[in-house]
Amino acid sequence: MELLKKKILSESEILPGSVLRVDSFLNHQVDVELLRACGEEWYKLFKDEGITKILTIESSGIGIACLTAQYFGVPVVYAKKSRSATIGNDFYSTKVVSYTHGQSYEIFISKKFISPSDKILIIDDFVANGSALKVLINLAEKGGATVVGAGVAIEKLDKDGGKLLRELGYRVESLAKIKSLDNGKIEFAD
Amino acid sequence: MELLKKKILSESEILPGSVLRVDSFLNHQVDVELLRACGEEWYKLFKDEGITKILTIESSGIGIACLTAQYFGVPVVYAKKSRSATIGNDFYSTKVVSYTHGQSYEIFISKKFISPSDKILIIDDFVANGSALKVLINLAEKGGATVVGAGVAIEKLDKDGGKLLRELGYRVESLAKIKSLDNGKIEFAD
Repeated sequence: MELLKKKILSESEILPGSVLRVDSFLNHQVDVELLRACGEEWYKLFKDEGITKILTIESSGIGIACLTAQYFGVPVVYAKKSRSATIGNDFYSTKVVSYTHGQSYEIFISKKFISPSDKILIIDDFVANGSALKVLINLAEKGGATVVGAGVAIEKLDKDGGKLLRELGYRVESLAKIKSLDNGKIEFAD
Repeated sequence: MELLKKKILSESEILPGSVLRVDSFLNHQVDVELLRACGEEWYKLFKDEGITKILTIESSGIGIACLTAQYFGVPVVYAKKSRSATIGNDFYSTKVVSYTHGQSYEIFISKKFISPSDKILIIDDFVANGSALKVLINLAEKGGATVVGAGVAIEKLDKDGGKLLRELGYRVESLAKIKSLDNGKIEFAD
């Protein structure tokens, strides 16, 4: 998606460890118009799939998921990274390792928000090693729901998360594929 | 706002400690249509104020802030509860005590996202003791920005956060004011 690639080229920074800083438009400051455009793009790609719910993980997935959900007319459910006072006792949980933070943490989803009749589209900002997507798929399937696919803004091809998920049969639609960040240069796959 | 009050009456639960569980539409599952309507309401109230940015705090403020920001045509900035690898060293930070969780934690905003020319609208899901709003105001003003006001979905009048902020001269527009949760009954102020 050209608009997103342009924004990545003009506003992102490459940090040590092949981390792309996109905090001016994606995960600290949010360019709402850009994320709406991403949502519209995923709507074109998944509109015939009977999506009933969009699933994401806090925090950076929430804005993009909510802006996308309005095109589908469905609610968003976001997995939580802490077991808050209001979540109760009836939840699915699993561990996830963050690519950016290098830490492992547990995530939680109330069982009442995932049902066998759900057809779920997962939305997130990044896929690198794919750990967030994998746990979201795992939690959705624990609840008996069907995972129709995933929409991801930026896919980092130096890690094989997207590839592995596609090999497992999941449809992963990323809007900007980054082949390399070597030598301080952002190289897209297409 | 009638739509929000109806939703609170039909779907929320009262938990011990006067905590209102609204996780089916506000802070775990998100009713995107409802939050869009909240955003539209705040747009009516603040549209002539020259808002340049919407400020909120992760995680439960992000969805409602992004859906609101589209009416204003401005970006969202959300304060972070952890100092991630991508935030760098040039940030404002301050401590906040959560009403729901009872814990204190530090929040962070990159300095580059708050400037003296900004006219900021704060958006959040709840105001109870007002600690989140107070720290967001504090961080925005540290950056030299003008805080035009705050839009809050649910105000809990059993705590005086909203009242104190109004006494300090801030405009706080809450869309559902809850007077009491006593005896398992939700009583609105108007």
